[in-house]
Amino acid sequence: MVLLSAGPGDLELLTLKAARALAQAEVLLLDELVNPQIVELAPQARVVRVGKRGGCRSTPQAFICRLMRRYALQGLRVVRVKGGEALLFGRAGEEIDFLRDAGVPVRVVNGISAAFAAAASLGVSLTHREHCHGITFVTAHTADHGEPDWEALARSGTTLAIYMGMGRIASIAAGLLRHLPGTTPVAIVQAASQPDEARLCVELRDLARAAPERAGAPGVILVGGALATAQADAAGARAAPLLRAASA
Amino acid sequence: MVLLSAGPGDLELLTLKAARALAQAEVLLLDELVNPQIVELAPQARVVRVGKRGGCRSTPQAFICRLMRRYALQGLRVVRVKGGEALLFGRAGEEIDFLRDAGVPVRVVNGISAAFAAAASLGVSLTHREHCHGITFVTAHTADHGEPDWEALARSGTTLAIYMGMGRIASIAAGLLRHLPGTTPVAIVQAASQPDEARLCVELRDLARAAPERAGAPGVILVGGALATAQADAAGARAAPLLRAASA
Repeated sequence: MVLLSAGPGDLELLTLKAARALAQAEVLLLDELVNPQIVELAPQARVVRVGKRGGCRSTPQAFICRLMRRYALQGLRVVRVKGGEALLFGRAGEEIDFLRDAGVPVRVVNGISAAFAAAASLGVSLTHREHCHGITFVTAHTADHGEPDWEALARSGTTLAIYMGMGRIASIAAGLLRHLPGTTPVAIVQAASQPDEARLCVELRDLARAAPERAGAPGVILVGGALATAQADAAGARAAPLLRAASA
Repeated sequence: MVLLSAGPGDLELLTLKAARALAQAEVLLLDELVNPQIVELAPQARVVRVGKRGGCRSTPQAFICRLMRRYALQGLRVVRVKGGEALLFGRAGEEIDFLRDAGVPVRVVNGISAAFAAAASLGVSLTHREHCHGITFVTAHTADHGEPDWEALARSGTTLAIYMGMGRIASIAAGLLRHLPGTTPVAIVQAASQPDEARLCVELRDLARAAPERAGAPGVILVGGALATAQADAAGARAAPLLRAASA
């Protein structure tokens, strides 16, 4: 079966390989955050929606795993579709382990993760070499519900891309302000690459005030000097309707 | 003009958006590490090769920038093609700054970076939540020719993806061994996604011995517990011809 990365939303950001796998799919297992129009690229497929969304699990992980195994062992061409890049967050590791133990061969098709689409919209490199020598992707909370080691992350000298942080902006801002200057540029992009994309560019010291908690759709929070020119160019974005309410 | 990410080599990993931009291109400015067959997707384009490769600069950056500006100001549809994801390393930031200052609008098309293609080949998530809560992409040397802060990177609790490190494996291994257990899983993937892909899975303590310096094609070095199952599955890869000599 195929574990397929659906990218950030714009279906034009699917790879050619992904489009081919979708065209041949007989069963599609769809995450909730995936653009629903993706089913049009899989005209032969039975579509099963197995969304899970920050906190409220509509379909337990174990059930999704068993579904994949069942369809795959029936000899069907199964495509499990995950948002963004399947191998970055999103528990692909657990699904791969499960399928491997079940003797089901898995092929992974890569995709574009939200931070890259966000950077494209902001018109910045994530690793501008005047400002940093890399980038770190983290989630705002660890598997054991702790906080990331903000001090080590700040010291790493990398741009930070923080996922699943929209509900914790105040604590993220507080954690980062202990180790980074208040003038550090921050950009938040929600629905990157989609028609309703929203962007916010602020300095770190203004982040908590500018971006209310749980303000809307999932988004990625980018932090670091590499965002400086995004900020300078963001007059339009700054004035845009900040963070629209989402369906969740 | 368009700044286009060519991905890790397999042209099937181009996005639909990239394929469309290539089909319309009138001038193609090609980096050396890009799969040369990409020109077949741009049948109307005049092709200009502007490669730069680790250390030996075949075309100075300033000249590439002036070329882009000249063609763009002629009103031609210019596509600047960079390997991997254009916004991750590769100096896209400087090119965007230059074009912006020159009044040339730039659109960025995302792509798949080598570490993701490598993880797909290894059949692992880069952020298996049993092992880490993120991933850090770094280059093996900073803009001022220093070393990354290996201690902070080790403490960050993230998987490490080290780019442009094939010529410095001994010093990377030594730097990491001061802060990470010798049993930490490491995978090296060269030419990820391409027919001549080569993989090596070792423990950190064996890295310097197993992977000779400058052993061949550019590759990505992945470090961390998330690679553990890649290692367990890597009997075939381990036995494969290690790191083939490259043309460079």
